Amino acid sequence: MWVLETQISEIRKISENNIAMSFALLRNTTDRYKLLSTPAMHAVIKIESSLLRGARKYFEENNFIEVAVPHITKATGSCENVATMFELDYFELKGYLSQTAQLYLEVLTPFLGRVWCIGPSFRAEPRADERHLTEFTLVELEFAGDFAELLAHIEGTLCSMINTVLKEREGELLLFGVDVERLRKIKKPFEKITYTEAVGLLTEYGVKWGDDLKSHEEKTIIQMMGNQPIFVTHFPKAIKFFNMRENDENPAIVNSADLLLPIGGEAVGAAEREYKYDKLRERLVSSTMFHQLIKKGGSIKDFDWYLDFYKTHGSLHSGCGIGLNRVTQFVLGTDDIRATTAFPLNRESIL
Amino acid sequence: MWVLETQISEIRKISENNIAMSFALLRNTTDRYKLLSTPAMHAVIKIESSLLRGARKYFEENNFIEVAVPHITKATGSCENVATMFELDYFELKGYLSQTAQLYLEVLTPFLGRVWCIGPSFRAEPRADERHLTEFTLVELEFAGDFAELLAHIEGTLCSMINTVLKEREGELLLFGVDVERLRKIKKPFEKITYTEAVGLLTEYGVKWGDDLKSHEEKTIIQMMGNQPIFVTHFPKAIKFFNMRENDENPAIVNSADLLLPIGGEAVGAAEREYKYDKLRERLVSSTMFHQLIKKGGSIKDFDWYLDFYKTHGSLHSGCGIGLNRVTQFVLGTDDIRATTAFPLNRESIL
Repeated sequence: MWVLETQISEIRKISENNIAMSFALLRNTTDRYKLLSTPAMHAVIKIESSLLRGARKYFEENNFIEVAVPHITKATGSCENVATMFELDYFELKGYLSQTAQLYLEVLTPFLGRVWCIGPSFRAEPRADERHLTEFTLVELEFAGDFAELLAHIEGTLCSMINTVLKEREGELLLFGVDVERLRKIKKPFEKITYTEAVGLLTEYGVKWGDDLKSHEEKTIIQMMGNQPIFVTHFPKAIKFFNMRENDENPAIVNSADLLLPIGGEAVGAAEREYKYDKLRERLVSSTMFHQLIKKGGSIKDFDWYLDFYKTHGSLHSGCGIGLNRVTQFVLGTDDIRATTAFPLNRESIL
Repeated sequence: MWVLETQISEIRKISENNIAMSFALLRNTTDRYKLLSTPAMHAVIKIESSLLRGARKYFEENNFIEVAVPHITKATGSCENVATMFELDYFELKGYLSQTAQLYLEVLTPFLGRVWCIGPSFRAEPRADERHLTEFTLVELEFAGDFAELLAHIEGTLCSMINTVLKEREGELLLFGVDVERLRKIKKPFEKITYTEAVGLLTEYGVKWGDDLKSHEEKTIIQMMGNQPIFVTHFPKAIKFFNMRENDENPAIVNSADLLLPIGGEAVGAAEREYKYDKLRERLVSSTMFHQLIKKGGSIKDFDWYLDFYKTHGSLHSGCGIGLNRVTQFVLGTDDIRATTAFPLNRESIL
């Protein structure tokens, strides 16, 4: 009996060591190609491929149409985070590597209803650590519809991703010691709290209304809410993207939602979009983002096509961007984003 | 009777005018966003989305695994066409925008068997005309297997793309006056001729063995062979990519295939890949591509990871890149690549 227990305990230790080793391995970004032969790498690739398939399954079942979007853009593709725009000499014009296809998808919603794309998003992020990549896969959807429908589409997409990986990759998940019951329990609808409620919960940590939530504050919220996916909704207008639509009853907040995932953190940014020309223009030119852009040599001209479109078109629409690697972090249970994909790109790992 | 015939003839004229107008519209790349409200644009987007879905359907049914590949790379991602590499300041190192994921997919074939990706491919092509884009969608697959299997996978992927668009988008195809019977007739296996045979057919046009085939010469071959998709196989080693595998019986040629499509022209480039370290290194450093790369400030160091991999790994594998827009040109019957997608990117059209 004693012998058996020792053996079981030994096996458990070996297994835990293997799991720890798998994650430790995949943290390496220098000479990444040397890891390509490892079972941990093969498992991660298969898990990521199933998550992508799950997202597309949702889009296809719900009549979203795929759009091929540009990745070299003017600032309309790269104003998500002005501090980290990669610049490019585009035939003596300034081009940027895109951070989001949002604005290009948005302008199709009046005609096509529901659209999506999956592709690379670029950030000139100098830190090579467990939280930052210079290129990652972004899953984006936009559609003619409102905030309630938006949350339902996000829940639907996430659940389809998780169900697909559970169905197709249980063996690979076990290699990383993933508690698949934790994933099986994820059901829609997800929990929701407003930003204002979240700030209330964080008052004792010194958070005030109007502050953006830091990564460790998001973690606290997730723990307080039962360690489940949770939407934080209706952020202050001043700290969010310029075209997030103002709330009709309280213009200090916008109809936005961040989806926070245990371990992964903020995995989805979502909102109803403004569609009235005058309002859009006013919000754009008064935004912090725009002032940063001007300082970097950008111009209102970058937005000419986008603003001009809303002179003649525009109707209620909503959308979101889902950071694939954050979802994979949640699924694997790893706090290191470098362990989520075959070729994580950071300052050190360019191949 | 006479009245009816006149009416039919009028309707036909209006219809022909509409088709011509649709194509003429979609040739515009300046102020592209102004076209987003047109039925021609909506139809093109739907057709493109179905072609992509058809490709993925083949990959999923045949157990290919999707891989998220990097788009900022060293020269290993951007040596497809050295003359048109977009350069990037990557934290004071030189980076490039990727032209192909081939080498990144190849190194996974010994472990995963069959892999694929779909994403942007970049060319710093200054011409803004009917044949050139600076960014286009490339469908790529690599697998452990030989030349015969490669041709079968290309046929399978293309047929799945065409069948899917026929099934889902007949109305949209008719808007462009597409003769759907022409597409229904496409069946595998496709016709095949060797490069040497093709040169024989083109002798009277002054083509000699060793010349690359120009676009108008490819058109002549297609017409001679019955205006159907046709593989031209076994090109001279000297004019092809450095890692295309030499033919065992004749080392002057490689086990390569270009798929030529009526109207679209060369839509697929494919080959068995070299996998022996010494041979790969020798072929690389003696290639014209490599000498051009050195002149542009590139270095053998860009290939360190790739060469090093083949010191310990490597086995027979093959793969291809399918230019989505060329396939769409074939499907639509348009000689203008700008008419194949919502946001065709060239020097003039950056948004």
